[in-house]
Amino acid sequence: MKIDRQRLERSIADLGRIGETKNGGLTRLALSDEDRRARDLMVEWMRAAGLRVTVDRMGNIFGERAGAEPLPPVMMGSHVDSVPTGGKYDGQLGVLCALEAIRSLNDHGIRTRHPVTLAIFTNEEGARFQPAMIASGVMAGKIALEDAYNARDRDGIRLLDELERIGYLGPEPCAPRPLRAYLELHIEQGPFLEEEGRSVGVVEGIVAIAWSRVTIHGTQDHAGPTPMRTRHDALVAAAEIVLGVRRMARDIVGGDMVATVGHLAVSPNITNAIPGRVTLSIDVRDPLDATLDRALLMIERVVEDACTREGVRGEVEHYWRVPCTPFDAAVVDTIERAAQACGARHRRIRSGAGHDAQYMATLGPAGMIFVPSRGGRSHCEEEFTPIDDIEDGANTLFLAALEFARGK
Amino acid sequence: MKIDRQRLERSIADLGRIGETKNGGLTRLALSDEDRRARDLMVEWMRAAGLRVTVDRMGNIFGERAGAEPLPPVMMGSHVDSVPTGGKYDGQLGVLCALEAIRSLNDHGIRTRHPVTLAIFTNEEGARFQPAMIASGVMAGKIALEDAYNARDRDGIRLLDELERIGYLGPEPCAPRPLRAYLELHIEQGPFLEEEGRSVGVVEGIVAIAWSRVTIHGTQDHAGPTPMRTRHDALVAAAEIVLGVRRMARDIVGGDMVATVGHLAVSPNITNAIPGRVTLSIDVRDPLDATLDRALLMIERVVEDACTREGVRGEVEHYWRVPCTPFDAAVVDTIERAAQACGARHRRIRSGAGHDAQYMATLGPAGMIFVPSRGGRSHCEEEFTPIDDIEDGANTLFLAALEFARGK
Repeated sequence: MKIDRQRLERSIADLGRIGETKNGGLTRLALSDEDRRARDLMVEWMRAAGLRVTVDRMGNIFGERAGAEPLPPVMMGSHVDSVPTGGKYDGQLGVLCALEAIRSLNDHGIRTRHPVTLAIFTNEEGARFQPAMIASGVMAGKIALEDAYNARDRDGIRLLDELERIGYLGPEPCAPRPLRAYLELHIEQGPFLEEEGRSVGVVEGIVAIAWSRVTIHGTQDHAGPTPMRTRHDALVAAAEIVLGVRRMARDIVGGDMVATVGHLAVSPNITNAIPGRVTLSIDVRDPLDATLDRALLMIERVVEDACTREGVRGEVEHYWRVPCTPFDAAVVDTIERAAQACGARHRRIRSGAGHDAQYMATLGPAGMIFVPSRGGRSHCEEEFTPIDDIEDGANTLFLAALEFARGK
Repeated sequence: MKIDRQRLERSIADLGRIGETKNGGLTRLALSDEDRRARDLMVEWMRAAGLRVTVDRMGNIFGERAGAEPLPPVMMGSHVDSVPTGGKYDGQLGVLCALEAIRSLNDHGIRTRHPVTLAIFTNEEGARFQPAMIASGVMAGKIALEDAYNARDRDGIRLLDELERIGYLGPEPCAPRPLRAYLELHIEQGPFLEEEGRSVGVVEGIVAIAWSRVTIHGTQDHAGPTPMRTRHDALVAAAEIVLGVRRMARDIVGGDMVATVGHLAVSPNITNAIPGRVTLSIDVRDPLDATLDRALLMIERVVEDACTREGVRGEVEHYWRVPCTPFDAAVVDTIERAAQACGARHRRIRSGAGHDAQYMATLGPAGMIFVPSRGGRSHCEEEFTPIDDIEDGANTLFLAALEFARGK
């Protein structure tokens, strides 16, 4: 049994037009008008596939295909929001392969014991509202609903108000629910599958992730008449931190750690003023929680050293942390068998990115399927996965979901 | 003969309330609503002082006190726009001391041979529209009117449209005009006068200034699954450039050079994306044009080295340059005599900041008077000059203007 490759390809193209950038990427920020239109189209398709659609208080959308028995569902899902000038595969692909799996169950007239549910999670990216995966986090009981509602974007707009504005503030509780299994297909976003010519990654777990915020208070001053000897330039200290974080990840800790300064904002940010304040983000990831702990201490030292040298004041706030998530062994094995069964060139792999699956793994047996990213690239307009590989991934998802849903 | 210290102090306080920040600083961006209100108040005061007010095509405001003979005027002026979260003295003080000098001429019933004109120049700071001193630049014939009109702020709003919106698109040509002398009082914005306990700086000239723009094109990618070995991070290269510019100014060139990265913008600027693009500004100043030439070459090498190391592409654009401006020897001598006459503790000094006086010096004999900046600080809310020093500066301006206006 196989999914319908052509139908899947068409759906990817159709959904990808909502928020499409002129270079063929995607800007579909969470709870924006583009997100609303993407959700509306998904709901239309879900209803057309016979699913019962519900929305919870965080705007998560669920479409349930009934099972023969009142058992916990097999849930497949991902997200439809994107980063700014991101790509058409991240998130969207997982949702559409899940829909395709359900459409294929319909095509083959298969009645499963367990219900099969398609889930679309709100604000996975964290590009508009922080933290990332905020809605699966609330569902898993790890983030308070009120905190999530009060998250604000850069313009000060509250998540709750945007949920309401786009019409996706649903009535269902956003709370833990029983699950037979949670399965998420996603692009790898790294180079390994492509480098080795594989079409499917059987994900064993997700690395630990920590986000920190650094604020540097220097002395804002005129760039002309202020001699070099009297300067306390927040951006000079920030530059030392950017390089210190790079050195830490590449040279000192070594191994699989990655560390990134992705956000940096200068104040007042004009050509002829010495920067008085800089805020920057640090994203650190490692397969081992203990190594991440060490990295956070090293970051504090990097910030302290840089600030002391420039005579400025620095604050570090470690504001978000998810521990390393090993996926359920039975789910990993099932996915591996499914990949084998559909003839995919597969390997086991670890996820360097956070996913909603991370929170779902606290609610029931969870696992993920990766498909390759060309050049290892994602969160950019060049994001691309060949349709042959998508087909292998979708078939793997279909077969794995079917195995759980049949309840053998 | 002296100016009226209390009246001057009141005017400083009154004008300083327009655009006042909650920490007692000033945000009065060029051609904003705050700028309009400050202009309106100045025009009201100028008319009340009997001046004939005209506005030119760049929104420069002139208030003329008639002379006994149809001779070129003695012009005093500065600007009323500020940087974001700037101070209440930069620009504003020069305009108000000039107004006070004219009010004092009225008080003493003095009829001068030359007219005496108060000038308020548009967009001196360059914080909203670039380049800085755009309107005196047009007046001096160094910047085309059309280019100035098409300057856009960060929101893409054109200077011309804002001039029109706030009602300061005047009918007078913005063109060279004969001048007996141009005198500008301004805060020093550096530490020297305060360090030496002086109240007045007799400015001999302005350093050469160059502004460059650097764009770094890296590879935008996901911060999680992208291994350190495959990254081309635009912000890492930018950080090396920030530190390279600092090293150049402080260690390599030495002497009086200053160099600043004041503006830096990251794209997409989110926590979990490797920065794909960074733009940054470099402001370099030196008393010697030849040293500045050398510095610009060194900057190109700094950018090239940083980009090569990170495997990114960098572009450098040297887009604005003003040569070193020596002020007219007779004006400098006159100001020095005036400072002496009113008992100010004075010294000769060089300006590290650009001022409208720079362009006015190409139209006639020009000079400047500095008053101290507490802690050498400016372009910040903490900007402050003691009223005793302001009084010395205003009296120096008054006496120097009087000497030229009397035409002795």
